[in-house]
Amino acid sequence: MDHSITFTTADGSTRSVTVPTGVMLAEAAQRAGVEINQPCGGQGRCGRCAVQVAKGEVRRRSTLRLSAEDVDAGWALACQSVVEGDADILVPEQEKIERRLTTDRTAAEVQVPAGYDYAADQTVRRVTLSLSQPNMDDQTDDWSRLQTALRLQAGIENLTVSLPLLRRIGAVLREGDWTVSAVVDSAGNRLVELEPGHRSPDEPLWGVAIDIGTTTVSVWLVDLVSGQVRAQVAEYNGQIARGEDVISRIIYASKNGGEAEMRSRVLDTINSLVERACKRVKGAEPGQIVKAAISGNSTMIHLLLGIPAASIRLTPFITAINTIPTMNAREVGLVINPEGVVDCLPGVASYVGADITAGVLSSGLDDADNTTLFIDVGTNGEIVLGSREFLVTCACSAGPAFEGAGVLHGMRATGGAIEEVWINGETFEPTCRVIGGGKPSGLCGSGLISLLAEMFLTGVLDKAGNVNLTLPTPRVRQGEHGPEYVVAWGSETEDGRDISITRVDVDNLLRAKAAIYAGFSVLADNVGMPLEMVEQVLVGGSFGKYINVEKAVQIGLLPDIEWNRFQFLGNTSVRGAYLGLLNKDSRQRIDDIAGKMTYIELSADNSFYDAFMSAMFLPHTDMDKFPSVAAALNKP
Amino acid sequence: MDHSITFTTADGSTRSVTVPTGVMLAEAAQRAGVEINQPCGGQGRCGRCAVQVAKGEVRRRSTLRLSAEDVDAGWALACQSVVEGDADILVPEQEKIERRLTTDRTAAEVQVPAGYDYAADQTVRRVTLSLSQPNMDDQTDDWSRLQTALRLQAGIENLTVSLPLLRRIGAVLREGDWTVSAVVDSAGNRLVELEPGHRSPDEPLWGVAIDIGTTTVSVWLVDLVSGQVRAQVAEYNGQIARGEDVISRIIYASKNGGEAEMRSRVLDTINSLVERACKRVKGAEPGQIVKAAISGNSTMIHLLLGIPAASIRLTPFITAINTIPTMNAREVGLVINPEGVVDCLPGVASYVGADITAGVLSSGLDDADNTTLFIDVGTNGEIVLGSREFLVTCACSAGPAFEGAGVLHGMRATGGAIEEVWINGETFEPTCRVIGGGKPSGLCGSGLISLLAEMFLTGVLDKAGNVNLTLPTPRVRQGEHGPEYVVAWGSETEDGRDISITRVDVDNLLRAKAAIYAGFSVLADNVGMPLEMVEQVLVGGSFGKYINVEKAVQIGLLPDIEWNRFQFLGNTSVRGAYLGLLNKDSRQRIDDIAGKMTYIELSADNSFYDAFMSAMFLPHTDMDKFPSVAAALNKP
Repeated sequence: MDHSITFTTADGSTRSVTVPTGVMLAEAAQRAGVEINQPCGGQGRCGRCAVQVAKGEVRRRSTLRLSAEDVDAGWALACQSVVEGDADILVPEQEKIERRLTTDRTAAEVQVPAGYDYAADQTVRRVTLSLSQPNMDDQTDDWSRLQTALRLQAGIENLTVSLPLLRRIGAVLREGDWTVSAVVDSAGNRLVELEPGHRSPDEPLWGVAIDIGTTTVSVWLVDLVSGQVRAQVAEYNGQIARGEDVISRIIYASKNGGEAEMRSRVLDTINSLVERACKRVKGAEPGQIVKAAISGNSTMIHLLLGIPAASIRLTPFITAINTIPTMNAREVGLVINPEGVVDCLPGVASYVGADITAGVLSSGLDDADNTTLFIDVGTNGEIVLGSREFLVTCACSAGPAFEGAGVLHGMRATGGAIEEVWINGETFEPTCRVIGGGKPSGLCGSGLISLLAEMFLTGVLDKAGNVNLTLPTPRVRQGEHGPEYVVAWGSETEDGRDISITRVDVDNLLRAKAAIYAGFSVLADNVGMPLEMVEQVLVGGSFGKYINVEKAVQIGLLPDIEWNRFQFLGNTSVRGAYLGLLNKDSRQRIDDIAGKMTYIELSADNSFYDAFMSAMFLPHTDMDKFPSVAAALNKP
Repeated sequence: MDHSITFTTADGSTRSVTVPTGVMLAEAAQRAGVEINQPCGGQGRCGRCAVQVAKGEVRRRSTLRLSAEDVDAGWALACQSVVEGDADILVPEQEKIERRLTTDRTAAEVQVPAGYDYAADQTVRRVTLSLSQPNMDDQTDDWSRLQTALRLQAGIENLTVSLPLLRRIGAVLREGDWTVSAVVDSAGNRLVELEPGHRSPDEPLWGVAIDIGTTTVSVWLVDLVSGQVRAQVAEYNGQIARGEDVISRIIYASKNGGEAEMRSRVLDTINSLVERACKRVKGAEPGQIVKAAISGNSTMIHLLLGIPAASIRLTPFITAINTIPTMNAREVGLVINPEGVVDCLPGVASYVGADITAGVLSSGLDDADNTTLFIDVGTNGEIVLGSREFLVTCACSAGPAFEGAGVLHGMRATGGAIEEVWINGETFEPTCRVIGGGKPSGLCGSGLISLLAEMFLTGVLDKAGNVNLTLPTPRVRQGEHGPEYVVAWGSETEDGRDISITRVDVDNLLRAKAAIYAGFSVLADNVGMPLEMVEQVLVGGSFGKYINVEKAVQIGLLPDIEWNRFQFLGNTSVRGAYLGLLNKDSRQRIDDIAGKMTYIELSADNSFYDAFMSAMFLPHTDMDKFPSVAAALNKP
């Protein structure tokens, strides 16, 4: 039986759709073209897809995160409510995915790798060819004639060609009066493009380096001839509206039609970024981009290619594929030259993907003389320990607590987020720095780390994370959600509600940081060296850009190593993709890295649980591991 | 400005369409979904797209083949008439493309080549693999796991895989509980199919051999395991409605959108034949066909692949490509397994295509001890002279006269066509055999050859093809189109009109036969041997099946060689495709044939014109070349 569902959105506009009994409200909304965010991927866990039933009824399969009053007032989770009759639905304003991203850059701020030599290093090249004209004494077919010219004039043999390009060859040869420019991919031995006439050897040949982060997608537009990065653009991954972390995305993708939707969402993001990057550079057009190198975690790469990712999430955590064959842009769906070479960099395991192999390359870890720790804490935490001699890696399911999820007043690092906190050790009054400088709306990852450290050092929290309710300040209290510390009073905040951190939040954060620290411990144990002997810590990912190492050490998230041994490298993944895009030796090194990396599955590792439990304290059960924190606590 | 055009078809139904000024009536009809045949490809040459303007006016760019009375009565050529205002158009009944084709066969009437050994000869094979199951100690990705099994259990390495198949692998492995059947193409080193579970080694593995004739498309369904042909089906090429010969087709294809239409027309024909073939064999389904070998002339192969064919028609007659890379069915548009290997056999030149290389293979010419002549007279005439030692070839633009085109009462070899004629040498009265046995409607190719020979032998025609109007019979007369011989009076014919052959028709037929005979002469001259020394004549193509050698020799179409040295092989092209489909050595031989064939371009050959002019007589200027005909003439 069919039912009519009418959605009214925050701007007052309405859209109606007819759906049969049993369809979820979230799907009905999608069919009606009404956007409802599902940050948990439609699992009914986050409560952020709540809508209000104004007329009619729906069957609520779950009301998690809704109070009885909410339900009485008609609230329902769109992803958990089944259509069983006509209904009018009010859709509240959806959280905007705003940007606290690097501003788009056109200037070449990235150094071209020293000694980059297009002719020697690049797999894609453009050659100009002068063909003999056919006549009655030489009726050689066009394709053979072109192949002969490639062989004799450029030493290129046995090229393959796609049917769509083959269809154009005759016209191009004649349009160019038998002088043509061919773009050839020597790695795949494939003809990529054929254009009429002569092209200057200095003319740019365009490529893109792409990093698909779970949260942010970055695109660098690169002139493969000079090696220069000509534009850098970034944007939130369009999949965010269907899940904030990889697990939620996999769940959403595994549902009917979800794979196609996830694929098209990330393709839309990438394609619009490519277009934006090209607009910033005179003469660059998406259709002229002949090569793309793509990095990202294993889930992101699977979803990009439309390969089912369900087995990544389930024991024993298997990817469909780690080493992806080179494809062309047409197959992948990138809106660049349809014959463009698309090189998805190799991953190692379900939770150690191409972002890490690329990151290891760009951080130089695989060429380090000293034992080095490489950390990429994004939505997940991946760790590599190694040097020129060895590489061991693991992934910590830290959860998205440091991205603001699973924390009552957590939020992403956008305008209004508290990004740093200082607490007065006598009055217990906090001072906050807010992104954008306005009134605060919540706490982002760096703010949470800073807050946790300050609470611990000032005694608001004890080692175990308990809130000391006996302190002489109204900021510590028994709140609705248990013991909490109020960071900002309602009078100071954007929406008039107090911003606090609860005991439950602290527990979530402890779990996240303990998972990461336990990862370090397991890796160090595995190679038989104490963590303190690590000579260098390289931090990749946007996370590293904003956190305060001192605070991160104080809560026991990072090992207690001298600060000058930490280096923050920013987005090592996109930089690795850029190096792989430019240089075939670098690209080979990424394969070598993937090949030689030993992956340790923490969930199957006996020592992990102990290490995790020991790290569930501030900063750790074993204070000897954190001498600098011990010293700070003992200061008068 | 837009105009409304209403078409009324023979069945009384009407369809309207709105088109702007300047659109051709033929295109307007197409947009309205009304079928109007254009046998000459829309060149305004054949007059068979004539329609009647009942209301309004059109601008006639050409009225070729329409009389002044026709034009007064509103007749116009749809392909030459421009819309300039509203109009009502009457579309007469369109000629049905009926069949005089081999009936579909299910029984295996084709002998499997002696010694066919699937395991050794076939490039495509199915292997069953048992994979180890992943677990926490072995988290190898699905694709690597499958590759390992292929290497260890079947010795197959470095396979490539398409993205669509890659997407299915994880599900298939799990559905089959880690036992799977893989179909692998060893020639292209590609995974073609992966199915869950174990498959019996005797289970058929399906392939198709396809011959795309200009007139007829043939499909053989083959079990690659046993080598048996399990069904043979054939049908007119759907492109016929847009041109009867290759030149008309190229012209039509070169017009706006024509390429896509030509491609989809022949694909429709092939795909429906494949479906028909599968319906005849229990358990066979198009989706299970994993390999196709396709033969056809160069124009047919270009049009199938959507590759522009315009340069084939224009001096210096260049194909876009002779040696086609192997593709998959998805790219080509064949509705078989989308990953199925599609192997278009190689051609040699614009007018010596894969049908000839395949024909040479299946005729065994390239392995003949004696000098052999191979002729394939279809819509064009291709000739190969050679043996194990050498192969020379040429193409004669004989034109479609022997297919009934360009002859006043010519028609295709369908029901109602006169296929054989005998003339009484005293009364000059003819006796005719009609296909189907009913009243005659016209003359088909074999009928024309027979008629020409009889007219010559009885003196109705002289050596130069002049009609002897002085004979004492009303059948020779000065007709509307010049001197003619009446083969059937209106009282005996299907449509009540006399069926005659005119002096103009005779000239067209002389030109056609002279072109072919001149081709023989040039090849023989080229290798320095008299044509009479040819030890064997192999005739391929459907043409050979119906003609009478004696008659063909009498008109000088075939060389005067003892009849027992002629062999009629039927469709050598589809048989060559079948051999290439089955056996990789045979397939290699086709490449070798293409490589070693010397192509002689007759239009650039100085001796061709002389040879042609000498052959413009019945049977030839030099009667010494036709001793058996000379003897017949001298009989009392």
